[in-house]
Amino acid sequence: MIGIGIIGYGYWGPNLVRNFAEAEGSRVVAVADRRCERLQLAKKRYPSVKTERDPTLIFSDREVDAVAIATPVSTHFDLAMQALEAGKHILVEKPLASTSEEVIRLMAEADRRKLVLMVDHTFVYTGVVRKIREIVASNGLGEIRYYDSVRVNLGLFQHDISVIWDLAVHDISIMDYVLSSEPCAVSATGVSHVSGEPENIAYLTLFFDNNLIAHIHVNWLAPVKIRQTLIGGSEKMIVYDDLEPSEKMKIYDKGITVKRDSPESIYNLLIGYRTGDMWAPQFDRTEALRTEASHFLECVENGQRPLTDGSAGLRVVRVLEAASQSMNKRGHPVELSAGGGSA
Amino acid sequence: MIGIGIIGYGYWGPNLVRNFAEAEGSRVVAVADRRCERLQLAKKRYPSVKTERDPTLIFSDREVDAVAIATPVSTHFDLAMQALEAGKHILVEKPLASTSEEVIRLMAEADRRKLVLMVDHTFVYTGVVRKIREIVASNGLGEIRYYDSVRVNLGLFQHDISVIWDLAVHDISIMDYVLSSEPCAVSATGVSHVSGEPENIAYLTLFFDNNLIAHIHVNWLAPVKIRQTLIGGSEKMIVYDDLEPSEKMKIYDKGITVKRDSPESIYNLLIGYRTGDMWAPQFDRTEALRTEASHFLECVENGQRPLTDGSAGLRVVRVLEAASQSMNKRGHPVELSAGGGSA
Amino acid sequence: MIGIGIIGYGYWGPNLVRNFAEAEGSRVVAVADRRCERLQLAKKRYPSVKTERDPTLIFSDREVDAVAIATPVSTHFDLAMQALEAGKHILVEKPLASTSEEVIRLMAEADRRKLVLMVDHTFVYTGVVRKIREIVASNGLGEIRYYDSVRVNLGLFQHDISVIWDLAVHDISIMDYVLSSEPCAVSATGVSHVSGEPENIAYLTLFFDNNLIAHIHVNWLAPVKIRQTLIGGSEKMIVYDDLEPSEKMKIYDKGITVKRDSPESIYNLLIGYRTGDMWAPQFDRTEALRTEASHFLECVENGQRPLTDGSAGLRVVRVLEAASQSMNKRGHPVELSAGGGSA
Amino acid sequence: MIGIGIIGYGYWGPNLVRNFAEAEGSRVVAVADRRCERLQLAKKRYPSVKTERDPTLIFSDREVDAVAIATPVSTHFDLAMQALEAGKHILVEKPLASTSEEVIRLMAEADRRKLVLMVDHTFVYTGVVRKIREIVASNGLGEIRYYDSVRVNLGLFQHDISVIWDLAVHDISIMDYVLSSEPCAVSATGVSHVSGEPENIAYLTLFFDNNLIAHIHVNWLAPVKIRQTLIGGSEKMIVYDDLEPSEKMKIYDKGITVKRDSPESIYNLLIGYRTGDMWAPQFDRTEALRTEASHFLECVENGQRPLTDGSAGLRVVRVLEAASQSMNKRGHPVELSAGGGSA
Repeated sequence: MIGIGIIGYGYWGPNLVRNFAEAEGSRVVAVADRRCERLQLAKKRYPSVKTERDPTLIFSDREVDAVAIATPVSTHFDLAMQALEAGKHILVEKPLASTSEEVIRLMAEADRRKLVLMVDHTFVYTGVVRKIREIVASNGLGEIRYYDSVRVNLGLFQHDISVIWDLAVHDISIMDYVLSSEPCAVSATGVSHVSGEPENIAYLTLFFDNNLIAHIHVNWLAPVKIRQTLIGGSEKMIVYDDLEPSEKMKIYDKGITVKRDSPESIYNLLIGYRTGDMWAPQFDRTEALRTEASHFLECVENGQRPLTDGSAGLRVVRVLEAASQSMNKRGHPVELSAGGGSA
Repeated sequence: MIGIGIIGYGYWGPNLVRNFAEAEGSRVVAVADRRCERLQLAKKRYPSVKTERDPTLIFSDREVDAVAIATPVSTHFDLAMQALEAGKHILVEKPLASTSEEVIRLMAEADRRKLVLMVDHTFVYTGVVRKIREIVASNGLGEIRYYDSVRVNLGLFQHDISVIWDLAVHDISIMDYVLSSEPCAVSATGVSHVSGEPENIAYLTLFFDNNLIAHIHVNWLAPVKIRQTLIGGSEKMIVYDDLEPSEKMKIYDKGITVKRDSPESIYNLLIGYRTGDMWAPQFDRTEALRTEASHFLECVENGQRPLTDGSAGLRVVRVLEAASQSMNKRGHPVELSAGGGSA
Repeated sequence: MIGIGIIGYGYWGPNLVRNFAEAEGSRVVAVADRRCERLQLAKKRYPSVKTERDPTLIFSDREVDAVAIATPVSTHFDLAMQALEAGKHILVEKPLASTSEEVIRLMAEADRRKLVLMVDHTFVYTGVVRKIREIVASNGLGEIRYYDSVRVNLGLFQHDISVIWDLAVHDISIMDYVLSSEPCAVSATGVSHVSGEPENIAYLTLFFDNNLIAHIHVNWLAPVKIRQTLIGGSEKMIVYDDLEPSEKMKIYDKGITVKRDSPESIYNLLIGYRTGDMWAPQFDRTEALRTEASHFLECVENGQRPLTDGSAGLRVVRVLEAASQSMNKRGHPVELSAGGGSA
Repeated sequence: MIGIGIIGYGYWGPNLVRNFAEAEGSRVVAVADRRCERLQLAKKRYPSVKTERDPTLIFSDREVDAVAIATPVSTHFDLAMQALEAGKHILVEKPLASTSEEVIRLMAEADRRKLVLMVDHTFVYTGVVRKIREIVASNGLGEIRYYDSVRVNLGLFQHDISVIWDLAVHDISIMDYVLSSEPCAVSATGVSHVSGEPENIAYLTLFFDNNLIAHIHVNWLAPVKIRQTLIGGSEKMIVYDDLEPSEKMKIYDKGITVKRDSPESIYNLLIGYRTGDMWAPQFDRTEALRTEASHFLECVENGQRPLTDGSAGLRVVRVLEAASQSMNKRGHPVELSAGGGSA
C-alpha cells in the first residue's frame, strides 16, 4: 500500500485525492493546503486523512511514499525539489515547472535518487487520445498535414501564468504524445485584457518538418466552451470534440487528389475532392486520472519510467518558453532546438 | 433599365446573373466566359441573354451599362480597367485586385470617369452582419476586445491565390465593416500541402490599438465546414455561426469583473465571472446578393458612392498583402500604415 | 422530347418546373395557376413557357404529353381524372387523392388507358432514403423493432387537410418503401388550435406484426424545425436527421443482449448493453426531384410502372384514412386490412 | 442533526447518500442493500456509516429519524409502510408506489402519524424546471397549447415496471408541476421487445381541457440519448433540452396570427407566421437533489408539507395506471377522474 500525500486542494487536488483514495494499491495519508476552508472540506469528505497547512509536514511524514503536487505553477519547482530531497516519488500537475532549467534540475535530482518523476499530462491518459495516437501511429490517417486545436472558455484566469501555460499546455502535451515529430519553430501572438496580468488570449503556430503545421487557440474570455481539434492527414482526417458526450472522435474519409500532366505545369494540375464515409470508433472510457494514478503507482512499485516522464515535461516546457518569447515579439518566429527533451 | 454584362459564369457568376435578372431596374444583356459548356448552361437558363467567349464584346456592347466581374483574381485588374475605359460601371468580385497598386489605379480611373467602382464584399450585405455592426456601433458589446473567425472546409483550391486571398478576405472585409478601427500590424503563418501551389492553410493575427486582437483561421483542407466567429466585448460577446439555419447570431451576457484593492497589487486582484442570459435577435434574411445588386444599381442610377467602394477594397487588399508577406517569414510581424485606404 | 404541363405554381410547382425544364428528354410547355401573380413570376423566369389560369387549356394542349399536379389535395382527383381522360400521363403531388376510393378510380382509369400514374412521394427518391432501404433490405440492422419519426416546424397550415395528410404522409411513404411489411392497425391522436380548421398537431402509432411499432409526430406549430427518424433493429440502429448538412444518416452498432438461464425465470434474465462504432455512409446527393423526374420520363417513354405507382399511393392513403378515423376517437385503434394496396 | 437511513445503494442511492452526507442539518446513519458488494462500496467511501443487508435494522435504529427509499418500485409500498409504522419520515424514489391504492394507504398512514411523506420527483427541484414553471405561471407563453417530451436512451431495462413507470414518470411529474391543469384522458401505445418483459417503448398522449394536448415518448432501446421538451404557447414557445450543457432552455418568440374576415368563412381565414427573437434565460444550477434534500430536511424539521407530497405522487401514479391500461388496449383512450389527487 503506497502512502500518498497531496499538496493543493483547490480545483484539481480533490480529483487526485478521490482517485488515489479509490485506487487499489494506494491510500491517501495527508492533504496540505494553505487555506483552512479547503482543509475542512477535505476533512468532511475523508475523516481519516491528515490535513496540514504546512507542506513540509508531508515531506517529513514517514507514511508518505509519494507526493502529488497540484499548486500554482510558480510553486512547482520548490515543492517538487523538497519532495525529492525528502525521498518521495512525485507526480506534478502540468506544466512540470516554470522554466526548462527547473525541469532539468528536477530530472537530475529524481535520477540521482532513483525516484519516479511524473508530470500530470492528463489527456495522454484518456481513452480518446490514446485511440487517436493508435490510429496515427498505425498510419490510419496517412501522412499528417496539420493539427489544429481550439480550447476556449470563460475563466479561470491565472495570476502567475498566461493562458498558454494554463491551456495550450494540454494541446502541446497531446501533440507530443500523438505526433512522432517535434516542432522546430513557433510563432505566437496574444494579448492581455486585464492590465498587469498575463495574456488571456493566445494563438500559437508550431512549425514541423515535412510541411506539418500545428496551431493552438486558447482563450479565457470566450462566451462558450469549445474543445475541438482537427487532425488532417493525407488519407483521412479526425475531428475530436472533447465536449461531445458520446462520439468524441470522428474519422472522415475525405481528402484531395492531385493530378498533374507534367510536373511543372500549373495549368494541368487538377485537384479533386474525395468524400467517403465517416466513422466514430469506440474507445476506453475510464476516467483519465484513474488510469494515470494506476500508472504512477505501478511505476513507483516497479521503478519504471512513466509515459509522461521528465523528458516529456521538458519538451512541453520548451515549447511553452519559445511561445512566450514569440508572443512578446508579436509573432516573431522562435527556433526550437530539436530533440532537446530526449533523455 | 440598367443593362448588365457579367464576365465569368463559374461558381459565383450564376448568382450574379440570377440576381440582376430578377432585380427591378436591371436586365442581363450578356454573359461572357471562356468555356463553351458554361455558356451553354447560361443559354439554357436564360435563352434571351447574349453569350460570348470574348469579354471585349461586352465592353463594346452599347446595351451594357455596367459590368460585373466574377473571374479569377489575377484577371480582375485587366478586365476592370478595360470596362472602366469603355465607360462601364463595375462590380468586381472580392478581392478587388491582386495588389494595392492595382486597386489605386482602378480607383483613380473610376474617379476620373465618374463611374461606380464597387467591390463585392458579399457578407457586408447580409442581414446578420449588418445586425452585428449595428450592435457593435451602438456599443452593445462594450469595448471590443477580440474578433476571432474560423472559415474552413474541403476545397475549392485556387491556383492563382492562397487561401488568405480566397477565404480570409471575407473576414477582413467583415471586420472592416463591423469594427471602427483598422489593424496596425499583422502576423500570419501558413503552409501549402500541394507542391508548387499557394498556401491552403493559414492563420492570421491582426493587431489593433487598445488591446484589440483579431485572428482568422482559413483552411481548404478541413474535413468539416466551419463558419464561426466570436466577438468579445467588455460587456457582452457574440457567437456568429453562419451555418446555423435559424439563430446565426447569439449574444451572451457574459464576462469578467475585475476588482483591485490597490492598483498595483497583484495579490489583491480578484477576477469574477458574470453569466447572464443569451439571446438571438432577428435580422433581415434577404439574400445578400439581392441587397447588394440593388445597392449597386442605386449607386449607378444616382452617382452615389457604394458602401464597399474602392477604399474598402484597398483597405482589405493592404491587409492581404501584409499577411502574405508575414506568412512568407513564418509569422514575422508586418506593420500596416494606418488610414491608407481612406479617400 | 416529352412535353410537360404543370398545374399549380405555388410552393412545390416551381421545383417541378425547374426540374422538368433542366431534365434531358423533357421540356415544359405550359404552367397553370389561378393566381395571376404566380403566372407572372413563372413568365419572368421562363419567358418561352405558356401560362394559363385555366387548367383545361393544358389538358387540351397537344404539345403536352404529361401533366404534373401540384395543387391542394382536395383538387387532385378532379384534375388527375381530367388529365387521364385527356390522355395525359400524370405525376401527382402527395397524397395522391383525398380518399382511397378516389385513388382506386384513378388507378383503374390509368390502367384502362395505359397511362402512367405516378405519385410524388419525394423522399423515396432521395439518396439517403434509398441508402436506408438498401441497408434494411440487406438485413444490415437485423430484425426491425421500431421506426420513430418527428417532423415538426412552424407552418404551413393547410385549410383542406390536417397535418397528418400534409406531413405524416412523408413518413408513411418512406416506411412503405423502407419496411417490408404493412401496418395492421393505427392509433392516432391530435388537436386543432385554430377553431374550424383541421388538426395541426398529431401523433400516430402504427402497429405491425412481429412487435414492430412505428410512431410519427407531426406539428405545424413547433418553434424549431425537426426532421429526425430513429430506426431500431436487433443488431444496429439508424438515426436519420434530414437537416444535417452532411452526415444525414448515422448507423450505431448498439443494442442489447439478453441472457436467460431458463426460459421462464425472470430473475435469471440478464440484459446487457452493447456499444460499438458509429458510422455515416456516403449516399447519392442528387436532388430527389431530379431523380424522380427522370424516373417519370423513363416510365412515360417505356410504358414502365413507376416505383411510386397507384398502389403505393393507395397504401399510403389507406393509412392516412385510418389515422384520421382514429384521431377522431382520441386514439381508439383502427384496423387496417392487410395487402389492400397490392396490385 | 437529522439522522438518515438510506435503503438501496444501486444507481440512485449513492446520490442520496452523498447529498444527505454533505447537507447541513443531516447525517447519514446507515445504508441498507441486499448486495454485499454494494455495501462494501458504501463502506469504502463512508467508513463511519453503518451498512446492513436487512432494512428492518434501519427501521429499528433509534439514530434514524428519516428513511430514503431507492429500491425497485415493487418494494416501495412495503418498505415505506414499515418505515412509517416505525415512526420514520420518508422520502421515496419515483413513482411513489405501484398502484394508486397503495399511495392512498401510505398517505393515510403518514397523515395519521404526522410524518413527512415526500416523493422524489427530482426534476421538480431543478433550476430549469422551476424557471419554466415561473414563466408559464406568469403567463409568459400565453395560453399553453401543447407539451411534448422525448426521453429516450439505451437502457436501463427494468424487470418489474414498463418504461412508462421508469421514464414517463419524470415527464408526468414535471407537467404536474408546470401546468395548472390535470389531464382528463390518456391514450397510450407501446411494445416489449424482450419476451416476458414489460414494454420498453411507449407513447402517451394526454388530453386536457381547452385543446391542450401533451405527448411523451419514452424508449429504453434508442441508439442516442435525447431529453427534449417542447412547450407551445399562444405567444411564445419553449425548447428545453436537458442535455445542453449551458443553454438548457430557449424561449422562442414565435407563433401564428389568425385573421378572419367573417367567423365562418374558411376561405377568408388567413394564418400568418410570426418570428421574433430567441432567448435563453439564466437559472439556478444547484444540483436538484441538493435542493430536494434541503427541502425534505426542512419539512421534517418544521412539520411542513413538501412540494412533492403524497397528493403529487397520487396524481402521477393515476396517470401511469391509466396509461398502462390504455397501452394494453392499443391506444384505446382511458378517462381520468379529475382532481383525484387533491387533498
